[in-house]
Amino acid sequence: MTKYQMIADAIQQFIEEKQLKTNDQLPIMTDLMAHFDVSKSTIIKAFEVLEIKGIIYQRRGSGSFVRAPKRPYYINLAHQSGTGKDLQNFSLSQRVIGVTMIQATKEIAENLLLDEGDSVFRVKRVTSIQGLKAVYETSYYNASAVPYLDEDIAQQSIFAYIKSEYQLEHAFSDSYFVLEESSELIAELLELNTGDLVMKYEEIFYSNDGVAFDYSISYYHPKAVRFYSGGVPKS
Amino acid sequence: MTKYQMIADAIQQFIEEKQLKTNDQLPIMTDLMAHFDVSKSTIIKAFEVLEIKGIIYQRRGSGSFVRAPKRPYYINLAHQSGTGKDLQNFSLSQRVIGVTMIQATKEIAENLLLDEGDSVFRVKRVTSIQGLKAVYETSYYNASAVPYLDEDIAQQSIFAYIKSEYQLEHAFSDSYFVLEESSELIAELLELNTGDLVMKYEEIFYSNDGVAFDYSISYYHPKAVRFYSGGVPKS
Repeated sequence: MTKYQMIADAIQQFIEEKQLKTNDQLPIMTDLMAHFDVSKSTIIKAFEVLEIKGIIYQRRGSGSFVRAPKRPYYINLAHQSGTGKDLQNFSLSQRVIGVTMIQATKEIAENLLLDEGDSVFRVKRVTSIQGLKAVYETSYYNASAVPYLDEDIAQQSIFAYIKSEYQLEHAFSDSYFVLEESSELIAELLELNTGDLVMKYEEIFYSNDGVAFDYSISYYHPKAVRFYSGGVPKS
Repeated sequence: MTKYQMIADAIQQFIEEKQLKTNDQLPIMTDLMAHFDVSKSTIIKAFEVLEIKGIIYQRRGSGSFVRAPKRPYYINLAHQSGTGKDLQNFSLSQRVIGVTMIQATKEIAENLLLDEGDSVFRVKRVTSIQGLKAVYETSYYNASAVPYLDEDIAQQSIFAYIKSEYQLEHAFSDSYFVLEESSELIAELLELNTGDLVMKYEEIFYSNDGVAFDYSISYYHPKAVRFYSGGVPKS
């Protein structure tokens, strides 16, 4: 975690502890710099993180203010670090169905900016939330960026593994979602009836260098669809 | 439209015309400043807009690069200006069902940061996309921020009206979405069967000063749910 992310977390905690309300003003820049003993640019970056997370907004020339608290138990689409933190009061469990190296189909190749037939790791997992079979996910990892994966790794955080092992860090992503009728397999895994509507959520994750290293397709049980999106303030 | 937004549009057009591809580098800062005859800070702000829209990404110290083109016909959740531009090749039509001043219920008051019983304008509309009854929307406008609305205004862009009439501009928003079974009314308006799943999409729009001026609840026909969310690059 970088310094500005730690500062962002500390400011968020400050807002929670002081029970600050919508439109309450945050301490001024110089006070925050002194308090955390960091530079102005670190505070500015921390503020950017908090803006993107929908925690604060900035008025030019007049400081930073608290935004309304969000409803709990929604997955924030702007969080780049998975759903764990948003759902920290829920009981989550994950079952890995399999990890296999395969050759990229046309669809996989297009999304990972590869050629058809290039090697990718396919990871299949089902995540349960509070006992509900909530998400069936199939992820494809570009094997030239992620040379090794297995079931033990997939049981933990794959993103943490590829960051420590290959210095590959998720920098940005594209997500698409639509509603679709569930296939027989999806229905069985999510304990639905074939044809029931599910949300299909596709994500493509890129590294700092613009390498598309992960293309994932997740099917969400209707009861598990609870998303939050904070419109980023215009500056 | 501000200068940096115009520059952002111009750079986006440049990317499209030159058919730049993923990871192609954009011209360097000094060239763009000279070409558009604007300051460095204007280019930086234009780049921020393009990052949020998922058009480019920036690598510290090495410039700005093109991101993969997005799939067409998805509504971009980061666009703050409505769905018109994303769906510009579609035929859209809107029917206003009614505009009435009412007293805020508990739910409306909580979302608009008002007291129960305060006056709000309620606007009901149905939007069709390519002939499909796509969205049934009920919006509540805080009447102390938006003192007047009628059906003629609702027929056009309410946001354009309140910007020109009351200098009230949408600065940021909170959106929540879940899947729900449609009521009899929703099913009728969207030409579905009662109980069919629809997406309930709630949005709260705030001004620069943090005033929650619009709380809207939209029900999307399953076939109309096509959303894109660009994970904002970490800087």
